[in-house]
Amino acid sequence: MSIQKPSLPKGTRDFGPIQMARRNYIFKIIKETFQLYGYQQLETPAMENLAVLTGKYGDEGDQLLYKILNSGDFLKKVKDPDLREGSTAVMPKVAEKGLRYDLTVPFARYVVMNRHEINFPFKRFQIQPVWRADRPQKGRYREFYQCDADVVGTDSLICETEILLMIRKVFFRLKLTDYNIKINNRKILTGISEVIGEKGKESALCVAIDKLDKIGWGKVQEELLQRGFSRDAINKLEPVINLSGGNLEKISFMKQFLSSSDQGMKGIMEIEEIFQLLEEFGEEEDHIQFDVVLARGLSYYTGAIFEVKVNKVSIGSVSGGGRYDNLTGVFGMEGVSGVGFSFGVDRIYDVLQELNLFPDDHNQSSCAMIGYFDEEGRNYGLKILNGLRSVNIPAEIFPDYAKVKKQFNYADRKGIPFVILVGSDEIKQHKITLKNLKTGEQKLMTFEDAIGTIKAS
Amino acid sequence: MSIQKPSLPKGTRDFGPIQMARRNYIFKIIKETFQLYGYQQLETPAMENLAVLTGKYGDEGDQLLYKILNSGDFLKKVKDPDLREGSTAVMPKVAEKGLRYDLTVPFARYVVMNRHEINFPFKRFQIQPVWRADRPQKGRYREFYQCDADVVGTDSLICETEILLMIRKVFFRLKLTDYNIKINNRKILTGISEVIGEKGKESALCVAIDKLDKIGWGKVQEELLQRGFSRDAINKLEPVINLSGGNLEKISFMKQFLSSSDQGMKGIMEIEEIFQLLEEFGEEEDHIQFDVVLARGLSYYTGAIFEVKVNKVSIGSVSGGGRYDNLTGVFGMEGVSGVGFSFGVDRIYDVLQELNLFPDDHNQSSCAMIGYFDEEGRNYGLKILNGLRSVNIPAEIFPDYAKVKKQFNYADRKGIPFVILVGSDEIKQHKITLKNLKTGEQKLMTFEDAIGTIKAS
Repeated sequence: MSIQKPSLPKGTRDFGPIQMARRNYIFKIIKETFQLYGYQQLETPAMENLAVLTGKYGDEGDQLLYKILNSGDFLKKVKDPDLREGSTAVMPKVAEKGLRYDLTVPFARYVVMNRHEINFPFKRFQIQPVWRADRPQKGRYREFYQCDADVVGTDSLICETEILLMIRKVFFRLKLTDYNIKINNRKILTGISEVIGEKGKESALCVAIDKLDKIGWGKVQEELLQRGFSRDAINKLEPVINLSGGNLEKISFMKQFLSSSDQGMKGIMEIEEIFQLLEEFGEEEDHIQFDVVLARGLSYYTGAIFEVKVNKVSIGSVSGGGRYDNLTGVFGMEGVSGVGFSFGVDRIYDVLQELNLFPDDHNQSSCAMIGYFDEEGRNYGLKILNGLRSVNIPAEIFPDYAKVKKQFNYADRKGIPFVILVGSDEIKQHKITLKNLKTGEQKLMTFEDAIGTIKAS
Repeated sequence: MSIQKPSLPKGTRDFGPIQMARRNYIFKIIKETFQLYGYQQLETPAMENLAVLTGKYGDEGDQLLYKILNSGDFLKKVKDPDLREGSTAVMPKVAEKGLRYDLTVPFARYVVMNRHEINFPFKRFQIQPVWRADRPQKGRYREFYQCDADVVGTDSLICETEILLMIRKVFFRLKLTDYNIKINNRKILTGISEVIGEKGKESALCVAIDKLDKIGWGKVQEELLQRGFSRDAINKLEPVINLSGGNLEKISFMKQFLSSSDQGMKGIMEIEEIFQLLEEFGEEEDHIQFDVVLARGLSYYTGAIFEVKVNKVSIGSVSGGGRYDNLTGVFGMEGVSGVGFSFGVDRIYDVLQELNLFPDDHNQSSCAMIGYFDEEGRNYGLKILNGLRSVNIPAEIFPDYAKVKKQFNYADRKGIPFVILVGSDEIKQHKITLKNLKTGEQKLMTFEDAIGTIKAS
């Protein structure tokens, strides 16, 4: 074997101890919140058959799927004419499986395959990595985690309301206070396109107004004109774009505006019901904003749509979702309505880092290390160590004989808060010296008192 | 899009809510034990560069690596002559990345790439899936989790001793009582081959005696003869094969037997020191067996080796590991000694299932469901629901208006233990009816009393 300088594939990352502790802090809060609301965990395999994945994410998505080379003689099905046609013709003959691209399609597959065993409405959450052969850039990776919660088999708007509550709960626990949960409804967007006289063009409308934040109303108008919207339609749209005020005011305006569109009215009624349900829960509207121009890219949404933005940070959009009426239709199971949302863990990580919101004890290292000078001290220390662990205090000993300074350096670098020193004096008196590495304080005490001090810290 | 009947790739599995709850039960115990002993978590990407993976697992291992097709025009580097040579010649030109095959090689890569930042001795654990293009069969999957703990940068036998303690701790918490932790040392096997006059043949010796359990001493002798061992060597080996008695007796016998071999004596001293350290920790020898014929397949072990077998179950071997002296050498970093072990979670799952050892509350569903008859009840129920969650009781409401029987069926199938019924009587009296679905008992009470009852259950 030759010696290599090892490297990581572009767009992928290792997560070392501190990053893992911070990520676990986020995962734990999200997971506990999902469970508090009755969601149960699902895991699906990293590899899916390409037949399951292909065609679900548009042409661009298909390009971004990672394909797995068939095992063994993968060329055996490839004929000369295929080769002349190039990679696109050869791909299906050399690869049958791919890596999952999101958690939604595998979830739909699971629901269809287990439809007879599932207890509907089925509330599931899933926290797993996904892979996309995208061009890596700041904040965009080829492997990243998604945290999804979806409920399928009901069209009750209680589910939408609970999603709003779950997002607020997670943010509360993460100590994030300056954020908005924007909510809209695809039917409202359909209604708007009808009312402004551009029925059937809601997709183009969505794509254009989705850019409002980035490019402004002037440029969006240009794009709408290019996409064949009339000047008259754009003029009719303008009051919607400029809509301001509280949620009730906006709802009231849109009820007027959409009165001639059945779909639009259905959408606005759904928004209204969500706010009413929020009240039935005994909850306020804090952080929740009805935003008529929220569009979201994904085409499969049919009802409510959500997006969460943290204010005053560089990458603010950290969560989103919506209702879909036919997620499982492509696998032959019609009429299953569902609603779901997703937390972007990598982005939440960056936001917490930027706002300095990670708790101090995030690195989950041992609470105490045994320090010793010689074999007698080490042996005495091993019993102390075992005693700490038996009362559930994570602890360790520097395994090699080394200068005490080296032992302290190790504890310090690992973020271990206490060192228990055992020298001949301590052994003689059946005590230990407890040193607090943060304050520098040290004190001779009994083992029982040391446990008390460590547990209280 | 055409309608497809979706399926899973062979050898892969979905884990539904109950399986996930059981798996999480196992993971949690393992993870907490690793942390109790000062190990910190690491995660590495699913994809590694093939240069990192290839050549580390032998020729057979290379065949079993999943390779990822390069993105875009993957055929562009392939020339006609390559194609004539077939899949083996083409593979390196169409695939640069592969899926990780175990957690050990990615760990070694991580250590080498982060050598200047790591605080040695580095105690890391890692719980992630690995992928092998193996033929699927009962108990063997193409995607499965490994749970590894390794410490690198020390040759202290305290680490070996702590591994024994961690295994016992995990098994104690899993309520597994009938098992053996077998321990041996590669240097002892080297010594044996020297003493019986077959110096340098320890690999062949290991491979043969590894089968002792399966094929018996008779067949092993045949195999040794075939592998060029002399009759005389086999006769000399026989007392070692037949060695019985307690750990101290075996150590004492082997000290005599190996007295002419430096390596062998070093190995036996290491075993002896581990038992001494166990005593220094204040621990007994329970479950720990010195087993001179334990060989273990992997060639990179150089010191202690472990294997854990659960007795009286169909697949007993659930954990194993050992010391290696040069894991990172292949990546250009010499002289890093380490020791590690791994829990086979799928096997532990099967063992717990077979012995009926999963706790009852393993499905982690909600603790209570709100049941209601009409809109008034639902709205009253939403406040109750919010109240339960505010005191951290996982709870839910059947989101659609449905017959109470349907609501109860849902709770029952999901394993929810309590239903809180709210009808007009309850609303009038500002109370609720709490029904225990296991006992059938139901009682009108205040919300506060209901919280007490649910929390106490």
